[in-house]
Amino acid sequence: MSESLPPEPPPFAPFERLRSEQIYHSRWCGLRRDIVRLPSGSEQEYHVFEITDAVVVLPVLADGRVAMVGQYRYPHGKTHWELPAGRMNPGETPREAAARELLEETGLRAGKLSALPGFYPTNGISAHFAHAFLAEDCAVVAEPAPEDSEQLFRRFFTRAEIAALFDAGRLADAFAALPVAYWLRRSGP
Amino acid sequence: MSESLPPEPPPFAPFERLRSEQIYHSRWCGLRRDIVRLPSGSEQEYHVFEITDAVVVLPVLADGRVAMVGQYRYPHGKTHWELPAGRMNPGETPREAAARELLEETGLRAGKLSALPGFYPTNGISAHFAHAFLAEDCAVVAEPAPEDSEQLFRRFFTRAEIAALFDAGRLADAFAALPVAYWLRRSGP
Repeated sequence: MSESLPPEPPPFAPFERLRSEQIYHSRWCGLRRDIVRLPSGSEQEYHVFEITDAVVVLPVLADGRVAMVGQYRYPHGKTHWELPAGRMNPGETPREAAARELLEETGLRAGKLSALPGFYPTNGISAHFAHAFLAEDCAVVAEPAPEDSEQLFRRFFTRAEIAALFDAGRLADAFAALPVAYWLRRSGP
Repeated sequence: MSESLPPEPPPFAPFERLRSEQIYHSRWCGLRRDIVRLPSGSEQEYHVFEITDAVVVLPVLADGRVAMVGQYRYPHGKTHWELPAGRMNPGETPREAAARELLEETGLRAGKLSALPGFYPTNGISAHFAHAFLAEDCAVVAEPAPEDSEQLFRRFFTRAEIAALFDAGRLADAFAALPVAYWLRRSGP
């Protein structure tokens, strides 16, 4: 269907950065306030949240089941189903980070790791990018070994269960829902 | 298929917040550093990025075409296809914000506005939530009137074009890709 693939939109001229103030910086994240010149000629402040890029992995076992983790998230206080995911460590490639997060959070190792479309979760405020992977032929090689700040509960789901969770709007974490959506499209009706 | 809908994961006990420091606050965003007690008993800092909730709208015309906007995003510098979206203003309901953003960014008014599943774009670092809507029977009632800081280019797409963009991984903005994924699942094969 490549004949129906529309072109990219006409690119706009970038805003000119006139000044930049680093409001905060730490090993976890940073916050920057830039003063930019808009196409109208006026100046405006623009906040940019800085955070290292992330990876997310959709793990499929040899029997076709998918591993997800019930995970507690401090910012909103809820526990819900997610895919293994995390930020890349310094020096890591996205693929290395994906294999590490998969092992840490689920105890799985993939027979085959291939790219799914990545995404900008919040590109109005951050250049933060998520590299997504499909991990196939996964096998349990260890118990999950999450970091001290992570609370995880591993569970295996059939494709029908994953589709039911998605269709019911129960995958409220975008890092989980979007790779699941790509996988559902690619793995049949 | 409700018989295949899995339950929520067992809820974890929330982290206890011991102290909280407001690193930054403005009308656009804030940054907070909390000191929390982990289940292991140890203390750890946890950064939380604060930003008002957002809305995103998938607009479908009476003839079945979908409106998207080519949009420049300062944080990564690219122009790509997005759905009309934005943050909620004080006092607005999600539905009111959706109708406003739809009109501002595309010049469209919806005959019918219904909820799609919402999502947390980055729940590891923020409680920021996006309310998603499907706008049906949309009609052009005005020219797009974006804010001074927005550069937008409106285009109408067939369903096949939207599916081709999604399947090719060309909807890199999660706020666009995820509502499109729900709509593709609900509107046929």
